[in-house]
Order: sequence, then C-alpha cells, then structure tokens
Amino acid sequence: MKIKTISHGDRVNLKTKSKTWSGHVLDSHDPEIILLKLESGYNIGIREGEILDMKILEKSKPIDPKRLPLPKDSKLPNIAMIITGGTISSRLDQKTGAVISTDAEEILNIAPEIHKICNISKIESPLMKFSEDMNPQDWEKIAKVCEKLLNDKEIDGLIITHGTDTLHYTAIALSFFIKDLNKPIALTYSQRSIDRGSTDANLNLICAAKYATSDIAEIALVGHENENDETCLAMPSTKVRKMHSSRRDAFKVINSKPIARISKDNFEILREFNARDNSKKVKLDTRYLGKVVSIKIHPGLDPSILEYYTNKGYKGIILETTGLGHVPSNGSKLNWIPKIKKAIQKKVIICATAQTIYGRLNHNVYSSGRNLEKTGIIFLEDMLSETALVKLGWVLGHKNWKPKEKMLENISREFNDRIEN
Amino acid sequence: MKIKTISHGDRVNLKTKSKTWSGHVLDSHDPEIILLKLESGYNIGIREGEILDMKILEKSKPIDPKRLPLPKDSKLPNIAMIITGGTISSRLDQKTGAVISTDAEEILNIAPEIHKICNISKIESPLMKFSEDMNPQDWEKIAKVCEKLLNDKEIDGLIITHGTDTLHYTAIALSFFIKDLNKPIALTYSQRSIDRGSTDANLNLICAAKYATSDIAEIALVGHENENDETCLAMPSTKVRKMHSSRRDAFKVINSKPIARISKDNFEILREFNARDNSKKVKLDTRYLGKVVSIKIHPGLDPSILEYYTNKGYKGIILETTGLGHVPSNGSKLNWIPKIKKAIQKKVIICATAQTIYGRLNHNVYSSGRNLEKTGIIFLEDMLSETALVKLGWVLGHKNWKPKEKMLENISREFNDRIEN
Repeated sequence: MKIKTISHGDRVNLKTKSKTWSGHVLDSHDPEIILLKLESGYNIGIREGEILDMKILEKSKPIDPKRLPLPKDSKLPNIAMIITGGTISSRLDQKTGAVISTDAEEILNIAPEIHKICNISKIESPLMKFSEDMNPQDWEKIAKVCEKLLNDKEIDGLIITHGTDTLHYTAIALSFFIKDLNKPIALTYSQRSIDRGSTDANLNLICAAKYATSDIAEIALVGHENENDETCLAMPSTKVRKMHSSRRDAFKVINSKPIARISKDNFEILREFNARDNSKKVKLDTRYLGKVVSIKIHPGLDPSILEYYTNKGYKGIILETTGLGHVPSNGSKLNWIPKIKKAIQKKVIICATAQTIYGRLNHNVYSSGRNLEKTGIIFLEDMLSETALVKLGWVLGHKNWKPKEKMLENISREFNDRIEN
Repeated sequence: MKIKTISHGDRVNLKTKSKTWSGHVLDSHDPEIILLKLESGYNIGIREGEILDMKILEKSKPIDPKRLPLPKDSKLPNIAMIITGGTISSRLDQKTGAVISTDAEEILNIAPEIHKICNISKIESPLMKFSEDMNPQDWEKIAKVCEKLLNDKEIDGLIITHGTDTLHYTAIALSFFIKDLNKPIALTYSQRSIDRGSTDANLNLICAAKYATSDIAEIALVGHENENDETCLAMPSTKVRKMHSSRRDAFKVINSKPIARISKDNFEILREFNARDNSKKVKLDTRYLGKVVSIKIHPGLDPSILEYYTNKGYKGIILETTGLGHVPSNGSKLNWIPKIKKAIQKKVIICATAQTIYGRLNHNVYSSGRNLEKTGIIFLEDMLSETALVKLGWVLGHKNWKPKEKMLENISREFNDRIEN
C-alpha cells in the first residue's frame, strides 16, 4: 500500500472489500481517512486500513486557467460584474479540499458565450465569502459598489455572483437599499462548483448577462427554472426563497410570478416591469438597525423569548406565525398574547408572517387572529419572513419613519396583488 | 338607515359609495363597524357611516342540524373517530362570529357518503381546540385515545379530525408515541368551515374513511392533492408540512412520496407500506422532554441565543441551518461555532436541519460544514425541522437512550432513502 504517494487533487480508484470508489482526493482532517469527492458530487471517507488496492488515474496538475482576454465590442452593451464569493467562485481545490475561490476570469471561462452578449467592462469584488457568513454590513458593502456602477454612464447593467445560502437575503437588502433603480441587476449563483461538468454556472451566467442587458430595471435572482439545463427564470428579488439544499433550481418564486423566462435562444417577458432609464441616478439608503430578529413559532415554544430580546434592546421582531396568522393563545398553556402586548408596550415593533411560506395571512377569519390583532402586531399579508426581517431592519434604521405605515407600504413589490379584507 | 335591525348571521347586501357587498354579518368588536364574511371567504369591515343602503337577503335561523342516525352495517368495517377541534369542527357561527365548534354528527353530515364506506362505531373527543394552541401534552392525550381504540378488537381504523395550523406536528408526535402500529390512522382537516359550499371537508373525510379502512398500518395525513376537489393524497406523517396558509391542498409531502392517491372512485397505492395486523397490540411511549427548541438561523442572528436556552436548562436544540448544513462561522462577525461547541460541552444535544425545507444536508461539500461537524452537532440529513424537533423531545424523554444514535435511527420513516456520504 502506497497511500502516501497520492496527493490532494489526484483522481484515483480505491478498492475496498465492498466496492471500488473513483473520485478526486480531498484534504482530510483525519490522517487515517482518505476523503474522496465522487463523480456524483458526494464525498466519502475511507479508512486507510480498508483500502485493498489503489490506482492513480490522473495526477493533479497545478492550476493554469486559460485566461480569456476580455474582448471589447463597441456594438455590445457594457456590463459590470460584482463577485462576492460562493460556489460560483469556487472550484475543487487541488491542494486544500473541496472548494477554493477563483478569480473573475475563471468564472468567465465557464461561460465564454457571455462575450457575444455583452462586454464585461468592469469587475469588482467588495468581499469574498461563502454566503452563510454574510452580515447586514456585507449587504451595505455590495450596495455601495452597485450604486457606483449603476451611476456610471458606461455601464448598462450589473451581474452579481454570490453564494446560494443567503443569496435571497442579499437580493432583498439591495431591493430596499437602492432607490430609483435605473438599470437591471441580475444576481446569480451556482449550486455545483464551476470546474465540474455538471455545473449550473454556465447557463446561469449566460441568462444573467441577458437579463443585465435587458430593459428591465429591477433586481432579479437569475437561476435554473428546473433540473433541465435549458431555461432560467428571472425571479423578483423580494419574492424568492432558497427552497432546496442542492438542486440547480434551488430558488423558487413565492406568492408572485417570475419576471422573465430566459434561455440561450429566448427571452420571454412574463409580466409588466419597471423600464430601464440610464439617465436616472440611483440613491443609496442603507440605514439598517441590526437589532431585529425572526422567530418561528412552534408548539411548546415559550413566549418568554420575547422578553429576552426586548431586554437585550431589540427593536423589531418578526414572528413566523401558524396558519392565517395565529399564535398559541388562551387555549394553550403558553399564551403568547400577553407577552406580545408587553413587548409592544415597550416599543418593540412586532410583525407577523406565515410559516407556511406560501399564502397570505388573513387574521379576520378566526378569533385567535382577531385577538392577536388587538395587541398591535402588524400582519404582513403575503410577505416572506426573510423579506420581512430585512425590511424591518431597514425601516427601523430610519428614526423618523412610522414603522407600521412603512412596513405596509409596497416599496419593492414585497406585497403581491392585495385583496380587500 | 336601520343597521340595528340586522343580526349576526343574516345574509345582507350593503351598498357603499364604491361597491355593494354581499355576505353574512359577523360579530364585530367595534360597534360602528359591520363585519361581513364575503362569499370568497374573506371578511370585510365596513364603517356604518359609509353604508348608503342595506338589504337583508335572508334572516339568520336557529341551528337545527339534521342529525343523521349512525347506521350500522355488519358488512362494513368499523372506524373510530377522534375529534380534536379546528376548522373541520367549525361552522360560521350565527351568533358570535366566524367560527364555533360543532358536534360529531354535524361533521358526519358533511360527508354522508362515509356511511357507505364504514360504520362510525365510536366517536371520542379528548380535547377541542384550534391547533395553534396544541401543546405536547395534547399530543399525549390524543395518543392515549389512539392506543385505546387501536387495541379495541371492534375497531378497524381511526380517523382524527384536527385543525390545520399544527396538524403536521400532531401527526409527527403520534408517529413516535405509538409503537407497533397495527391499523391505519388517517388525520384529516378542512381549510374552509364545513357549512360553506366551498368546504374541502367532504372529500377529505371520505378519503380519510377509505384510508382508515385500507390495509395500510401507517399514520397518514389525508388531504387534497391540488385545488380540484377530486383527489386526496395519503401523506406520510413524518414527511409532510403545511405549505400554504389557505389553499385546500395546504399540505405537501417533503423529501418523500405519498403513500396513496384516493378519490371517491379510486384507491391507488403509490409505494410499499406496512401492512395491517389487527391481532397486534400497540404500545404507547409518550415520554417527552419539553425543554427543546427550534431556531431558524438568519443573517445577523446572534448565536448568544444558544446560551440563553442552555442557561434556561434546555436539553435539545434544532438549528435550521442554511444550504447543505451551514452556520455563520469564522467568515462572519457572528461566529456560531464556538457557541455551539460550548452548548454541546454543557450536554445540550444540537441537531442541524435544512431551512430550505426541501433537500438533504451534506456537510462534507464545504469546509464550513466540515468545521461545523467537529462541534459534535448531529446532521439530520433530509429530516424536516418540525419532525426533528418532536423527535428530539421524544428521544430526550428517554434518559437511557443514546441521543445521537436514536436521532439517526430511521424509526418512523423520518429519513428517506439514504445516500452513502
């Protein structure tokens, strides 16, 4: 056995008693375990002692990404790209394990077709991180770069590449932070790293470029419509949520419609939209109060959690309520109503959203909803909990605004067609 | 204007400047507001001063539910019904507002076809409440009635009617509380109260009766497959979630397949199942530790919440993580890893689920998942957060069990086909 002769990044066959495994060797935390990235994308750890035979199929090579020049075609629109990290900026690292960051050219290499759609005139990277690590401060950094690029006469639209875990949150934040949007912004991603044959980055990037050069001055999350590698949807930034941990079509429009369906050959507009106006200047309003929190209610959850956050100085709470806008009340040992009243008396703004994700609150149908309304809670209709949280932080960042009025104002299409009720 | 002449329950036309509204008069908290339940199911409040004209279409009548006898047919199977409250036990109250409880016969009146499928031999009602008020103690009460009825030789299956808000939680709890299930249990509901033409209770009850008389000894949530009033699905109790606030097909199977498709004319089995064995006796194991909580992580969420629950004596925490099983770590100002480690050192069992709802965790793909694993967190693969919470409370109710082993054991089909990883 010459396990020590294999290096990270090598493609190998490892024979065990039960099966022969093929894949790339990854960095393992346990020196006695060989970690393999299988072709399926899954990893497997094999104890050295279990390996009966081993074959190196291909030695790892030092990375030498074929660096495309950034061609300029005066007939094509000019797009700026903002790179923030995530899987779309990652490849299977030959040295340190599953993923490392790549540079911009490497991203563009995955979708050379982009150069027939637009010139990538500028590339900025205000930060590089996996999106589970993003904070409201990062949203602000990205928004500032957007402002600069959107107000640049040479630029016709933006593509932002981003990790998927909290991509929808960043999309929501930009929707409130950027005022008077003049040009398209396409946020895109990949669920599989860009050096894999199965990557979804190629189609996502091409469709994002097509969106960024369109006349739609709205922020859209552009990504696979389904598991086929054929169409993407441009999804409205305040009505979209990551709904699958691994599928290419992880993002789904919730309580609304997609803006457009985009493929390599087609661009189908699916609803009316705000039109591009390159002469307009955007303004930034990134005031944000971090002392907001979202709580998903479940049977047995103690409402004392409201006191904890109130005592810690929190100013806004989103409650993900059950059904049409309900909380455990006097039929339960854990009555939320008095605690909600008390928090609201202490000037905490409490809003209700639907933990069903899909659908609209209607607190008038049942007495529990009507009793909850009397506490002064704000029912956010069909707004997503994620959108509600970010909007609440942004609204409370403005001391002179009336929170209830602002939370119920349809600022960035966060409410869909309202029903009289 | 003779507004005072209209009573709760009257069907009226109210003319305002903009529109004429038709509906049933509901009880209003504000004496100057007339609250109408519109035909659409939505309520509208109209200020008395805005009413230009009024017409009573139909006066309210005292309730006289046509009480069907409970016919007995010795050729039909015998089903027991457990009534726990919720919309399916409610009708538009002519006196006090939108909903009041009804008795069992009234529920059966909505689906007289049921008497051709089975005898409703017993009816029990251990509690009557809207399901947002249900606590773990209520799950135990329902489970005890189930045990008694399942071990009754005369009974061939159970129908449980229940509010929708937390119906999936009760289904999950029964799945762990009842051991060696011998007969079918169908949990069902309605999203619209049973005195409305648009009620979904008729089809749901018929399909629940067909399921309860089948050979499938599994707990299923039986409800509309889609918005048509034609087919129901029998959905596996640990893999189902309320995914819409108001639609008839509110419940969706998550990360699994339905057990059967049921209509008035058909019963299509969709997967292998545990077969009925009336000779078996069920056992109850309702030990449950209430000190468990579920936390959905979001950008900006302070991990100190873990200390709060640890200090309050909580023994189990479900973290709804992002993506494939990630938490903000050293790329974030709010690093969850040290706090998770600390809680686990204090013997708190922490488990990870996917906040995307759909999909499976795979903590080996990214370094953030691998670093999280080192804390000792338990990754719950494709288990729903709701299922995870109830299972954790139940597992921790058993002092001699090894929590990790039990949480990862597939006890009630809470994991779907496992992938090697």
